[in-house]
Amino acid sequence: MIREDKPHEECGVFGIFLRKKANVAKSIYYGLNALQHRGQESAGMAVCDTYGEKGNINAYKGMGLVSEVFHEDTIRALPGNIGIGHVRYSTTGGSSIENAQPFFLKYLKGTLALVHNGNIRNAGEIKKEREEAGYAFQGSSDTEAVAARMIRERLSSDTIEEAVIKVAGKLKGGYAMIVMSPKKLVGIRDPLGLKPMCIGKVEDGYVLASESAALDAVGAEFLRDIKPGEVVIITEDSFKSELPFTRECRAHCIFEYIYFARLDSRIDGIEVYEARIKGGESLARRYPAAADIVTGVPESGITAAVGFSRQSGIPFQTVFHKNSYIGRTFIKPSQEEREEAVAQKLNIIKSVVRDKRIVLIDDSIVRGTTIRKLIEMLKSAGATEVHVRISSPPFRYPCYYGTDIPSGNQLIADNYSKEELKDMIGADSLEYMEIKDLHDMVGDLQVCKACFNGDYPD
Amino acid sequence: MIREDKPHEECGVFGIFLRKKANVAKSIYYGLNALQHRGQESAGMAVCDTYGEKGNINAYKGMGLVSEVFHEDTIRALPGNIGIGHVRYSTTGGSSIENAQPFFLKYLKGTLALVHNGNIRNAGEIKKEREEAGYAFQGSSDTEAVAARMIRERLSSDTIEEAVIKVAGKLKGGYAMIVMSPKKLVGIRDPLGLKPMCIGKVEDGYVLASESAALDAVGAEFLRDIKPGEVVIITEDSFKSELPFTRECRAHCIFEYIYFARLDSRIDGIEVYEARIKGGESLARRYPAAADIVTGVPESGITAAVGFSRQSGIPFQTVFHKNSYIGRTFIKPSQEEREEAVAQKLNIIKSVVRDKRIVLIDDSIVRGTTIRKLIEMLKSAGATEVHVRISSPPFRYPCYYGTDIPSGNQLIADNYSKEELKDMIGADSLEYMEIKDLHDMVGDLQVCKACFNGDYPD
Amino acid sequence: MIREDKPHEECGVFGIFLRKKANVAKSIYYGLNALQHRGQESAGMAVCDTYGEKGNINAYKGMGLVSEVFHEDTIRALPGNIGIGHVRYSTTGGSSIENAQPFFLKYLKGTLALVHNGNIRNAGEIKKEREEAGYAFQGSSDTEAVAARMIRERLSSDTIEEAVIKVAGKLKGGYAMIVMSPKKLVGIRDPLGLKPMCIGKVEDGYVLASESAALDAVGAEFLRDIKPGEVVIITEDSFKSELPFTRECRAHCIFEYIYFARLDSRIDGIEVYEARIKGGESLARRYPAAADIVTGVPESGITAAVGFSRQSGIPFQTVFHKNSYIGRTFIKPSQEEREEAVAQKLNIIKSVVRDKRIVLIDDSIVRGTTIRKLIEMLKSAGATEVHVRISSPPFRYPCYYGTDIPSGNQLIADNYSKEELKDMIGADSLEYMEIKDLHDMVGDLQVCKACFNGDYPD
Amino acid sequence: MIREDKPHEECGVFGIFLRKKANVAKSIYYGLNALQHRGQESAGMAVCDTYGEKGNINAYKGMGLVSEVFHEDTIRALPGNIGIGHVRYSTTGGSSIENAQPFFLKYLKGTLALVHNGNIRNAGEIKKEREEAGYAFQGSSDTEAVAARMIRERLSSDTIEEAVIKVAGKLKGGYAMIVMSPKKLVGIRDPLGLKPMCIGKVEDGYVLASESAALDAVGAEFLRDIKPGEVVIITEDSFKSELPFTRECRAHCIFEYIYFARLDSRIDGIEVYEARIKGGESLARRYPAAADIVTGVPESGITAAVGFSRQSGIPFQTVFHKNSYIGRTFIKPSQEEREEAVAQKLNIIKSVVRDKRIVLIDDSIVRGTTIRKLIEMLKSAGATEVHVRISSPPFRYPCYYGTDIPSGNQLIADNYSKEELKDMIGADSLEYMEIKDLHDMVGDLQVCKACFNGDYPD
Repeated sequence: MIREDKPHEECGVFGIFLRKKANVAKSIYYGLNALQHRGQESAGMAVCDTYGEKGNINAYKGMGLVSEVFHEDTIRALPGNIGIGHVRYSTTGGSSIENAQPFFLKYLKGTLALVHNGNIRNAGEIKKEREEAGYAFQGSSDTEAVAARMIRERLSSDTIEEAVIKVAGKLKGGYAMIVMSPKKLVGIRDPLGLKPMCIGKVEDGYVLASESAALDAVGAEFLRDIKPGEVVIITEDSFKSELPFTRECRAHCIFEYIYFARLDSRIDGIEVYEARIKGGESLARRYPAAADIVTGVPESGITAAVGFSRQSGIPFQTVFHKNSYIGRTFIKPSQEEREEAVAQKLNIIKSVVRDKRIVLIDDSIVRGTTIRKLIEMLKSAGATEVHVRISSPPFRYPCYYGTDIPSGNQLIADNYSKEELKDMIGADSLEYMEIKDLHDMVGDLQVCKACFNGDYPD
Repeated sequence: MIREDKPHEECGVFGIFLRKKANVAKSIYYGLNALQHRGQESAGMAVCDTYGEKGNINAYKGMGLVSEVFHEDTIRALPGNIGIGHVRYSTTGGSSIENAQPFFLKYLKGTLALVHNGNIRNAGEIKKEREEAGYAFQGSSDTEAVAARMIRERLSSDTIEEAVIKVAGKLKGGYAMIVMSPKKLVGIRDPLGLKPMCIGKVEDGYVLASESAALDAVGAEFLRDIKPGEVVIITEDSFKSELPFTRECRAHCIFEYIYFARLDSRIDGIEVYEARIKGGESLARRYPAAADIVTGVPESGITAAVGFSRQSGIPFQTVFHKNSYIGRTFIKPSQEEREEAVAQKLNIIKSVVRDKRIVLIDDSIVRGTTIRKLIEMLKSAGATEVHVRISSPPFRYPCYYGTDIPSGNQLIADNYSKEELKDMIGADSLEYMEIKDLHDMVGDLQVCKACFNGDYPD
Repeated sequence: MIREDKPHEECGVFGIFLRKKANVAKSIYYGLNALQHRGQESAGMAVCDTYGEKGNINAYKGMGLVSEVFHEDTIRALPGNIGIGHVRYSTTGGSSIENAQPFFLKYLKGTLALVHNGNIRNAGEIKKEREEAGYAFQGSSDTEAVAARMIRERLSSDTIEEAVIKVAGKLKGGYAMIVMSPKKLVGIRDPLGLKPMCIGKVEDGYVLASESAALDAVGAEFLRDIKPGEVVIITEDSFKSELPFTRECRAHCIFEYIYFARLDSRIDGIEVYEARIKGGESLARRYPAAADIVTGVPESGITAAVGFSRQSGIPFQTVFHKNSYIGRTFIKPSQEEREEAVAQKLNIIKSVVRDKRIVLIDDSIVRGTTIRKLIEMLKSAGATEVHVRISSPPFRYPCYYGTDIPSGNQLIADNYSKEELKDMIGADSLEYMEIKDLHDMVGDLQVCKACFNGDYPD
Repeated sequence: MIREDKPHEECGVFGIFLRKKANVAKSIYYGLNALQHRGQESAGMAVCDTYGEKGNINAYKGMGLVSEVFHEDTIRALPGNIGIGHVRYSTTGGSSIENAQPFFLKYLKGTLALVHNGNIRNAGEIKKEREEAGYAFQGSSDTEAVAARMIRERLSSDTIEEAVIKVAGKLKGGYAMIVMSPKKLVGIRDPLGLKPMCIGKVEDGYVLASESAALDAVGAEFLRDIKPGEVVIITEDSFKSELPFTRECRAHCIFEYIYFARLDSRIDGIEVYEARIKGGESLARRYPAAADIVTGVPESGITAAVGFSRQSGIPFQTVFHKNSYIGRTFIKPSQEEREEAVAQKLNIIKSVVRDKRIVLIDDSIVRGTTIRKLIEMLKSAGATEVHVRISSPPFRYPCYYGTDIPSGNQLIADNYSKEELKDMIGADSLEYMEIKDLHDMVGDLQVCKACFNGDYPD
């Protein structure tokens, strides 16, 4: 319920190549599980045994969480030493199994599997070219268009990486992809670095993943981030890197640091946890508040709240108890009691808030329904003042790189002034992080701020 | 269990076009259910509302029986006034959902759905041509190759029927297909007439089906069989027939009359029930037996047994009680008790057989395990003699037109003499219908006898 | 659909005692499957290993068919060499798992399991006595009342059979029961012989079953029927029979011969198949018809039709094709098309009936909806006359012994004259078997005719 | 995985009585969900409509979480304005549906439903008395024995509360129960106050619950704790309280404050959150450590860690990221990698711990496997020292009041000295809360410390 009221990341990707007879499906399972926060709609993996006879790639995917899609028997039915996996939250392409990944294509030269995080802005053109040659698409995602183009390109290329680079040269947008042929793993990241991907080392092999937390989950040592525009090719004998698309300019997605990524990940040289702490500290400096305690909306506001507390000296307190048993099948209150659903998920530790002035930190406001309810609950429990601090600037522009921010009239920051919004949610004060202060979070890292200022990188 | 020991038909097709706002999904459901005997592995349908805005075709398919795949809610989710459906028993292409039909393709000019009964002998060529253009196939069936070729042809054709005819001109093999575009239904039957298809009339529309029994199930009046090589095009305004591929020679599959088709169907001018009765009469003339009672192996041997009784004057008796509750989930006896499974399915009415000489009719012998067990049961129950009469000639050659007869060393008739076989199954005499006597069943109809004599039509 | 329009039997019971280390659960499974026609609402079994340490009885039951309730793993989880099983169609007690059998009670002296076919007329008294002692019942069936009374009686008895006999002495009604303690199997049949039960022999043991067909299913040799009022006690060392309740008068249920029992069973000295043939012959003598062909409503009218044909010389023909794929999950036509459902299940072989006068045999008429539809279908297909002959007298009185005949205003025979009924169903003539002619079916066997004449035995 | 290595509470109870036409099932659902942490094995509820005709109590229960057992349709099928509910973790009685609650008994005077948290030490005697009267028990729980005794007592009592009090007078142990008749709700708490229960007020009615957090979940206002030995009777017209069993001595379970209860509950006058904060402060005073940061094992060690930080001045840091997607169906690492499972659930934020001396707080140690793994992970991530502080004294004695502490040789504190244990888990120092310091957590409240010192109250 709370999660529904947030921007959405669309995907997490994972790849592994072990240079020995091995079964990697369970590692992919753990890796995907560590990336589950990046997408809960569907999960899938494709696996191949390079020591097997024929290079058959086997794949399995389904709607739901990793632990719902895969069970002991499905894992066992996917033998092999190389593989890729994917968790998805739909952006383009509807929510259906046809759009679940990996895309897995049998074509003239064999089989190819592909996983993708991001959004291809010119997917329509690529799709149309293929359709004019008589191609029929199963689903509606941009990823399938890319995969179809790659197999066509492969027919006139010497290697899979050659085909990948040819196609990538035509793509516009943000992406992190892993392509698997029966003998190779090819990872590629867009030239602006919009979408994250890193590489790790295990004994006898390599691991690629959207976030370093997934490396930890399989016991891999973090080597480095894949560079923007870099292509890495992993085979039985070699590890190669090419940089066909390097550019000066970078545009790393700032929302990875604010909300998307796991607290324990490290992306493009920056620790997510530290960035959030610093965001809270920055807020406290720019917009202090006279209060007795600081707290955060679980889970995403907690770390910035600790930072705010550290900078301001106002003690941090746990205020909300989160009921972790509320899952997908939980019967939600009826439409008219929509806000009440929040109360089933979060309850207030009343003794902590009674007669207190509170600073409440959250990472963003989309529709504002959740925070309004929480403030109401705090006041009912005896809080005298509630000062809201948001650890990101307000959303004013849609994202075209694969992040699902409710568009147009749903963007509350676009329709109301800060003052109006403050009154609507019942806060005693409301402040957002300033765009100029994002520097406090990530230092000199070049980030994409398009959702705040409309300045789209390309 | 008994069914496993028989040749297999692979498919049934059904199509309906109502010229009014209507929901045909339930009619397709009933039609497919009436064709269920032609394939139990998967079922599917595709439906379109020609009065809707955009001509969206919706499809649904799954593994299992029609009544397992479709429920009230799936039927409701398929609105529209035209549609096609399919039941499948796999011949080429493995048993998997990718090969289930209808094939449903979204391509440049829209959508196309296709159902197919039969086997395309040159599917490999057709598939290869498409793959060389970069096409990726989802499954391994010949039907998908045909569908992919049709959408390619459609891009350079004015109408869907033009594309269908162009592609059909290249096909070798036996087939009955129905192609659906959002505005048309196109039915086509191979020039030799190997696979059956007929057309019926309902108020405001037309119905196409593999067998006339499916017309009865939806209250349609039988109009006529589709002619070999005929293409029928049904639209909102017109019903057209073309005959682009007519030939002198015909080769209707004789096994439709012997075993595949429903007793209550009428195919290419001949009543199936009458053909089976006449088959039994013919056997009784050619190979009489001195016996007290005649009976048949349920269900397929019963009608020929009635014919044998009628000709010979030996009374017909029900001898086997069939337990109709034994379904798919029934726990079968273990491997070593394989034959015992027959006894769970069929039990003998002992008072009828005690001290009797019995004529036992079956339609065919594939592995011989079932009939051996039945004879053993009859003798244990006190039968003094068992004379087996088979209402078809022995299989000696594989079928290349879409019928699954266990090949090579499984063809018992090919490995053993009739005398040896008689002893193996424990019969007191064993006779098959003579190839020359098939004429008694179907009169002057030109039938394919390749599985008996290796004389393949082309 | 057709079955719904028939009287219902409520149960089948099965028991087995092997005097060696063995697993009988699979045999019980096959036995219950052979009795499935006697009840499809729930199935269950209880098994004990007399060679095990502690005499634990394990039980498993569920709603649905035997093959739906039990799978390989449930069977494996029920080890032991003695056991009982049950299939149920609810009469008293609603349709719920609490009323499914075996009843399985843990009490002071151990455990007891019980299966029951029949109806206890004074169950209310027995139940009340127990409730006054503070007993709480799980469900609402009369069987649970009997079981609760037995464990109470067992506390003051030396043996389980002593308790069974004490309780049986108090029961009024018709019943066939098997009681299992961890060391014994006790079978008992009511003094009038209303409900059937027989005993068979396997190597190293004995089998009890409602019908002899279940003995065949497990390879047991039929020994004899359990006598009315007999109690049999099977232990490791002995087989004992007691006759504590013998009476002169008998009242075997006539409907076992007309409809309930399997064609291949033998009950109280009479072959079911022969009885039905003779019933048809009797009808033909009493109520002949000028016709071209004779046929029966599948399945229950077929055998009597063969008898009618044999006596009258009018040839028997298969007229209805039954679609055996229509199961529980089949989507039925909507309420207003109720009768149409029959047409999905049964289709007419039109060539057989065109221009023919037909004798149509069925075993009974309850609501008349099915036969009306069939006659309409026959006439549409070209039949010139349809003469209906029913192989039982009309129902006029409810059954109090465990058979579910729709009561009161649903009994069509009670509300309309034969002439009115003939017109309602559209027949050209309608005749029922006369009560005095039942003698033709079963000879001198004393049968209960209460449902026809209201003469209730007691 | 982490939870497995903790003592277990067995149950949560909930009851509601609305004095108007209403459906309380959804409120019970929310209430049970708020109590889910008290038991995850089974869930159930029983509901009655006092405005209905006949006072039928309907019940539904199943294995699993509240949200797995109940869905929209099961909730809808339970209409009524009064009801009780239960979540269970098995202590006595195995893990099976027979032992799930509510117990629901139909008896001579009607129906009775009962939910129970606790353990009846003399349940065996009570059960035996009933068995000698011929009673058969469905399951093996002590709760069923109590329920059976209550219906017996009810037969000779004027009111249900009279029966409840009579039976309660015989019980030994700790319990909080709610008994429902079709017109009344009766709540009772053991004389020592071992198990918690409180009462709240909603418009038009009352709510009873194990913890106040469940009152919050249904919008009820907390009134007060039920007193030890108190019986409350809620009817349409009245709210009565009786104190038949008051004693001087109290023995509230200390583990509610340390671990069981939700952070946001208030039990017997003490805020759980405050108690845990104070526990951490007490530990910091008694056993300070020279360290750079303080952290806690999620979730249960976090609050005490905040207290430790507050007292010591050492900053609190989030160190572990908890993957909240790991649920019941998650495929765990194989047996030999048992400890690795912890790493899938908790990952370390490495930048926080590198080169740091850490105080790690947990609420208890049972087997020690989890904490050993966490310390190993901390050290691998660069922590220089790890000082473990446990916010409870070591377990040395089993609990006989319904808490499942692994007994005998599993009690690690009983088998090893603190020094040995410190080495086994790899800590640099290890200290437990002293029994004498429990006073710091709960002030003058009389608590049961039997699991620490063997001094069992009675």
